Amino acid sequence: MNQQYPSVLLEKAVNEFAKLPGIGPKTALRLVLHLLRQDVQAVESFGQSLITLKHDVKFCSECHNISDADICEICSDVRRDRSTVCVVENIQDVMAIENTRQYKGLYHVLGGVISPMDGISPSDLQISSLVERVKQGEINEVILALSPTMEGDTTNFYIYRKLEDMRIRMTVIARGVAQNDELQYTDEVTLGRSIVNRVMFTGKI
Amino acid sequence: MNQQYPSVLLEKAVNEFAKLPGIGPKTALRLVLHLLRQDVQAVESFGQSLITLKHDVKFCSECHNISDADICEICSDVRRDRSTVCVVENIQDVMAIENTRQYKGLYHVLGGVISPMDGISPSDLQISSLVERVKQGEINEVILALSPTMEGDTTNFYIYRKLEDMRIRMTVIARGVAQNDELQYTDEVTLGRSIVNRVMFTGKI
Repeated sequence: MNQQYPSVLLEKAVNEFAKLPGIGPKTALRLVLHLLRQDVQAVESFGQSLITLKHDVKFCSECHNISDADICEICSDVRRDRSTVCVVENIQDVMAIENTRQYKGLYHVLGGVISPMDGISPSDLQISSLVERVKQGEINEVILALSPTMEGDTTNFYIYRKLEDMRIRMTVIARGVAQNDELQYTDEVTLGRSIVNRVMFTGKI
Repeated sequence: MNQQYPSVLLEKAVNEFAKLPGIGPKTALRLVLHLLRQDVQAVESFGQSLITLKHDVKFCSECHNISDADICEICSDVRRDRSTVCVVENIQDVMAIENTRQYKGLYHVLGGVISPMDGISPSDLQISSLVERVKQGEINEVILALSPTMEGDTTNFYIYRKLEDMRIRMTVIARGVAQNDELQYTDEVTLGRSIVNRVMFTGKI
């Protein structure tokens, strides 16, 4: 669609929005016109919050999670179990696991998974820094919590090879049927694996 | 969802994005993390383009379309037919009609339609300024091009009553079956009206 915008300033703002993933030119225009209806303060607060974030945000030097300080809140929390590290793909995964309140160890954010198709190789990820963390000796379990995809499995295997000679436990999050899934619609691989990896039933899940 | 963000700056930016219509907290987070992966210049250009737009954009004093100058490009274009004014709800509608390249007159952007449910009354819209434009005597046709909804029809009727004593032609855009629509799925009102308002067939549409 070759749109004729009535204003160059409008066109510029719409084009900026349309660069975002999943935002087409029509949605971009709708969002910009929405912002234009807000007062000056609201628009400045929006624009400035992004500029400030980009300038001031840090990445934790330990786990590479996003952070306001050099060491993130999780890594600097003395109540957390420093002997366990959960390897995740990205920041959203840290947030998702934190929301479960089931994990009290530390994290290691890779920043992606190995994907030759997308040109992402191990050196683009925080894998060598994970090896360094393990070498320091404080860690005795690494939990691999990557997505159960081909890329996730490739990355799991790559990390496994890098760490297998070190004296740590390496675990991977359980795969199986999801809560409330219907068995008949569960894919074969998942269902088959959930039978092979069955666990003892003690009267409650 | 009560998300725990790893950074206050991140949370602030995500909350700003999530205020936009149709953007939930998960999408907002995805968009902000995308921006965070861009370089500083790109993020500044994004934020600044919105702030500049809000500060510097104008609304045409004639037709109320968005504009970089006091009078918009359409109103100041001497090649356009100044005797015809097309009344539309918003800026997107001007762009949509311009894209058809079928219209060479001027516009009048109401800024909405009358909607008691949403608390939008005639005084919230650019209706009195339309009456003033017509009073100046240069206009001899007003085309009503509002959406064919109850609110659009109410607004059409309100404008009709305001202008009926002036010596101008008042027209409304044709309603009927849309190009490529299947008749059997067209609603009754549209289909019925398309038969009542049939036009002479001259061998081509």
